[in-house]
Amino acid sequence: MSQAERTMEKPIVATMIGDPGGVGPEVAVKALATGLPSQTSRPLLIGSVAAVERAIGYCGLGLRARPIAAVAEAAFQADVVDVLDPGLLAPHEVTVGQPSAAAGRAVRKWLDLSTRLAERGDVDAWIMAPIDRASLKLGVGMTDDDEAGPPGTFLLRTSGKLRVVPMSEHISILDVPATITRERVLALVCLVHETLERWGLRGPRIALAGLNPHARGNEERNAIGPAAQTARERGINVEGPISPDAVFRQCFEGRYDVVVSMYHDQGQIALKTTAFEGACSIYIGLPYVHLTVPHGSAMDIAGRGVAQHAGMLAAMTTAAALAAGRFTMKG
Amino acid sequence: MSQAERTMEKPIVATMIGDPGGVGPEVAVKALATGLPSQTSRPLLIGSVAAVERAIGYCGLGLRARPIAAVAEAAFQADVVDVLDPGLLAPHEVTVGQPSAAAGRAVRKWLDLSTRLAERGDVDAWIMAPIDRASLKLGVGMTDDDEAGPPGTFLLRTSGKLRVVPMSEHISILDVPATITRERVLALVCLVHETLERWGLRGPRIALAGLNPHARGNEERNAIGPAAQTARERGINVEGPISPDAVFRQCFEGRYDVVVSMYHDQGQIALKTTAFEGACSIYIGLPYVHLTVPHGSAMDIAGRGVAQHAGMLAAMTTAAALAAGRFTMKG
Repeated sequence: MSQAERTMEKPIVATMIGDPGGVGPEVAVKALATGLPSQTSRPLLIGSVAAVERAIGYCGLGLRARPIAAVAEAAFQADVVDVLDPGLLAPHEVTVGQPSAAAGRAVRKWLDLSTRLAERGDVDAWIMAPIDRASLKLGVGMTDDDEAGPPGTFLLRTSGKLRVVPMSEHISILDVPATITRERVLALVCLVHETLERWGLRGPRIALAGLNPHARGNEERNAIGPAAQTARERGINVEGPISPDAVFRQCFEGRYDVVVSMYHDQGQIALKTTAFEGACSIYIGLPYVHLTVPHGSAMDIAGRGVAQHAGMLAAMTTAAALAAGRFTMKG
Repeated sequence: MSQAERTMEKPIVATMIGDPGGVGPEVAVKALATGLPSQTSRPLLIGSVAAVERAIGYCGLGLRARPIAAVAEAAFQADVVDVLDPGLLAPHEVTVGQPSAAAGRAVRKWLDLSTRLAERGDVDAWIMAPIDRASLKLGVGMTDDDEAGPPGTFLLRTSGKLRVVPMSEHISILDVPATITRERVLALVCLVHETLERWGLRGPRIALAGLNPHARGNEERNAIGPAAQTARERGINVEGPISPDAVFRQCFEGRYDVVVSMYHDQGQIALKTTAFEGACSIYIGLPYVHLTVPHGSAMDIAGRGVAQHAGMLAAMTTAAALAAGRFTMKG
């Protein structure tokens, strides 16, 4: 196949089903059943084919799960869900609605497999459905922060027209000011600019939030303002520091494509208080396209077919757009 | 007049017109022209009768301004606006749309007069229309924080069903953690509880925000959690610490009557990103009812009759409800 032919093809978007005892399998199959992901991508799942079959069953969907042993075996046929299943989990090992060591061990390996496939270019993008901290702790003793992502990465979160990338994730407010240096702010602004351009958005309009009330303080003068100035001298379309209580509204209203926020809650309060349907989270700083959904494994409602799949559907369609370089940031 | 007869009367709500060069006079007369404030209160204005007449003129309202020299002279008649004018400002001294020393000096005295009338009980509540920092600086050299209010007070801000009282106003993020002590959090929770009860809301449901992401940190363990526990032991209906990115949404959804937030931007981001019409700000910790509106003097649009009066109208009707002890917190 020629390079031109390959480029014309729809991107392969793999979704790792997340914890097989949680809502991951059901939101994945419900999103696929809408038929929308296959319009712009070649979708497949990674995980347990038994868990996928079970989810199709209790959601009452007209789909069939088809086990495959390699991405190359995927057929991408209508109403058939290709599931890359390395056979790590026997059906009886997982009870829907309960964390388990077996699920934790399997998820750990599915994560590694998904990353490897993306790094090798076997898939063009991969999505992580909700994993479960309790299962991972039982299975592999993992206790690190499940939201933080790989080192050197940042999370771009979307909700409607609002898009936010914070400078840090789960660190205490006491430790936040020390992280606001000119170098770090500038590096993130440059990374956001380059990433959005790679995804297909030319000259993205970046808003830089201040740290303090009304963006008046030492960090604005000594770090955020100078970083914005240097970024502008490099041709980046960035404004700021902007008052934290105004900037998110301005992004919602279409004045900016994305906000670089100074700490986790600054953006999360804006995102979660407005809480539009179809929010998703995109990793920045990776050599491949990788997304997740902004909800947990929700063991308490798993297995009843009631979990909302809007976030997963947004992740699947957004992943396809990013991988194809046609991300328009339309809200 | 007997005490019972006085209690039956509608409360007197005075509105200081704010900077006579800003939008204060026009939002005040437009709010009065709706006829709603006089349904639940006896409204009057404090300031320059000339400025009020001018605002009535350029807003094209069917009202008449009537100068009075004391509250006792107010007649509270339909379509007549009683203006308590101590005669500090000649009409030619102020140009609409421009700050001035004369306006700053007059505003400083109108503020003192309003406070004195409220302290003496001559008025049951008073509202501050937007003052102007530039005028005050020109007129009286004032440079302090115009949002902070008198010492020992806190601002309860409303927007739709969301109501927030922050632990502090304009202090830097670096200085925030030191303000989060068990004693200070407990004192504010108790003050909010007592104030809402006095306004007529029995057993208000108070949400206490955490400081750190997902409310997990030292301040939650050592200060916020213990303060909530002690408050509950005193019979106060308080929950927390609650994750800062979840608590404001929960208040919007009706689960709580009010959120005590840990710093200015935490609540302001939620309030301003959602930005419902008719937001107002209520001082807590004063022996009388005192409100303000959450917008500035807006010199750039003053004099054209285009300023939105929804915030001022909300302040006037809310002031009447608080003074009458029938604040229901309906959103």
